[in-house]
Amino acid sequence: MDYFKESLLLHHHLKGKIQITPKLDVQTREQLSLVYSPGVAAPCLEIAHNPELVWDYTIKNNTVAVVTDGSAVLGLGNIGAYAAIPVMEGKAMLFKRFANIDAFPICIDSQDVDKIVETVRLISPIFGGINLEDISAPRSFEVEQRLQDLGIPVFHDDQHGTAIVVLAALLNAVKVAGKNLSDLKVVINGAGAAGIAIAKLLQSFDYKGVDYQVSVKDILICDTKGILHASRTDLNSSKLEALQFTNRAGISGSLRDALPGADVFIGVSVGNLLTTQDISTMAKDSIIFALSNPTPEIMPAEAYAGGALIVGTGRSDLPNQVNNVLGFPGVFRGALDARAKSITPAMKMAAAFAISECITNPTKEEIIPASLNEAVAWRVAEAVKAAAMKG
Amino acid sequence: MDYFKESLLLHHHLKGKIQITPKLDVQTREQLSLVYSPGVAAPCLEIAHNPELVWDYTIKNNTVAVVTDGSAVLGLGNIGAYAAIPVMEGKAMLFKRFANIDAFPICIDSQDVDKIVETVRLISPIFGGINLEDISAPRSFEVEQRLQDLGIPVFHDDQHGTAIVVLAALLNAVKVAGKNLSDLKVVINGAGAAGIAIAKLLQSFDYKGVDYQVSVKDILICDTKGILHASRTDLNSSKLEALQFTNRAGISGSLRDALPGADVFIGVSVGNLLTTQDISTMAKDSIIFALSNPTPEIMPAEAYAGGALIVGTGRSDLPNQVNNVLGFPGVFRGALDARAKSITPAMKMAAAFAISECITNPTKEEIIPASLNEAVAWRVAEAVKAAAMKG
Repeated sequence: MDYFKESLLLHHHLKGKIQITPKLDVQTREQLSLVYSPGVAAPCLEIAHNPELVWDYTIKNNTVAVVTDGSAVLGLGNIGAYAAIPVMEGKAMLFKRFANIDAFPICIDSQDVDKIVETVRLISPIFGGINLEDISAPRSFEVEQRLQDLGIPVFHDDQHGTAIVVLAALLNAVKVAGKNLSDLKVVINGAGAAGIAIAKLLQSFDYKGVDYQVSVKDILICDTKGILHASRTDLNSSKLEALQFTNRAGISGSLRDALPGADVFIGVSVGNLLTTQDISTMAKDSIIFALSNPTPEIMPAEAYAGGALIVGTGRSDLPNQVNNVLGFPGVFRGALDARAKSITPAMKMAAAFAISECITNPTKEEIIPASLNEAVAWRVAEAVKAAAMKG
Repeated sequence: MDYFKESLLLHHHLKGKIQITPKLDVQTREQLSLVYSPGVAAPCLEIAHNPELVWDYTIKNNTVAVVTDGSAVLGLGNIGAYAAIPVMEGKAMLFKRFANIDAFPICIDSQDVDKIVETVRLISPIFGGINLEDISAPRSFEVEQRLQDLGIPVFHDDQHGTAIVVLAALLNAVKVAGKNLSDLKVVINGAGAAGIAIAKLLQSFDYKGVDYQVSVKDILICDTKGILHASRTDLNSSKLEALQFTNRAGISGSLRDALPGADVFIGVSVGNLLTTQDISTMAKDSIIFALSNPTPEIMPAEAYAGGALIVGTGRSDLPNQVNNVLGFPGVFRGALDARAKSITPAMKMAAAFAISECITNPTKEEIIPASLNEAVAWRVAEAVKAAAMKG
């Protein structure tokens, strides 16, 4: 199938992929008087007297904003707020499809952090959660961090959604490979939003009240200039922060210097980057997540030829698709159901374990559930809600 | 029916009156690949190359923001952005119900004009129109005026929607009363957003290319201090502007000084303001639009007792309901269909005439179509679209 051509035709036919519909079909004057003037004054006054009732009387309890500035859309780069709309509509479809969440795209026509933060704040009353999407690093870190006091979950999916699903896949991959999580040597290529968030989630944290502990101690992150290490003078603030929990041995060099002996390669970078030869320098039974889309860092066949045991990509037409859709719907469903004020590390961890546990007997070709598996979001939601209630 | 109690129960049951649903039920991996990654890159790139294509490939062509700051909600006053949500959701229901428009509430948590204007600007990419709602005057005038360069229609319904429907009712009322529009003496009580907009629309303008001319020359506007006249020192900018086309005779005094001999009273103020005695001072066969909600400025029975020929109110349980729902759905439908960049005076005039023409043989008890008459919005849309294309 020519996805490009077919997709254009479909988008032109649909003229927008989502719609906003009344939950009640207003047919009578009485109904009109209940949902609108004069009856609607009742819930308005109740909320005016007790603002918490906004959760009971309005769509806030089930509505999420999908917020972007269009600065880092898919692999397309900085295409702006208008061109980003189709992606955000698609995201909204998936929220509804998998978690029955009403999501609406907010495409902000500015790439100024202050303006993005203020806009999200000002339009937040009707939303129960904010999904930040396709905002380039390191601005995305700042936007997310500054909005943590909003009183509703603010979650940058490119960071945490990706990290959750990668961790879920890794949990099952190490089982198949017979490796031990805490002994793994991991190389992450790509030091943007996703790469750094993955490294963070793979760390061991002492999460209060969390039953899971993940502890990958040996992580190297590479950007286009090579391994992040302390002597580099070109690192932005988020890369500098990442140094605090990666590259403890202080290794310098290129990606190719990082790979020898590594158990895991996680690519969140660009396509066609690695060769069979590169993979062959890695440890036995290596685990390769080549997540660049649509072209992976290395195609599965080439990775297997280099000795890889398990290969995951971002593509739906290959086995082991590491797809964010396994994460964000359930994460927000659980957070909304718990009326959580934020997505804590414990909730992310719970989501990753819940996804991995959807596969009872992981195999090389099935370390992660299919993207269209409808049970995943609900299991994730349950786990995330439980973690939120505990916290 | 106890609307207040029933409405609370209904709102609690629904937990929000609108929902966001996919137009396509994604069941297969192929569909997922078309509506989301990788296929979605196609419309994104098309729009990036030609921004006008946003109208073809996204929901922009059919989506309107219902924007409020919660400063003047119904007759409830300044209850804020959160408590305003149920009204905005109700409005969104009506947009879909009557004109198949997807409308989403944007409830802004600030009453600062600069912030409201900037927020609307920044979130405008996905919207084909902006319906400003329940923002108090005179801030609403400034917000609307400053957004006229946005490239999509920005329409303050409390002003223009009300004015359109009032004019529609008046057009038929004068037919029934055998009065001549240009000879009318009109008293408007309420110098807020609605009152001043009504006065403006009742004026004669030389609309280029418009087939209709409305020309009411004798209009007095009253606020709580009495008739707006030039010697008053307490008038804000919008009231001062209104002096340029009202009160040409320079009359001063109270509302009761304005009424004697008037043909038409239009109340957009507060309930229980006038008595039978007040109405009896007006001209023979007077026309009373007592639009305060839920309690009219005077109840119909009392107005008739004072000699009124025709009485309209804002209430659905009384004849001649002057309800904005007759206006805004068709106005936006027509504007969207024409891809209009603004709602011009000609478009408003066309809407008013289209509504009035839905009643073939107006009578005292039927000068305006029923609020649930489904044909109205489509007739309005056609007229508005035609006016937009002409302009």
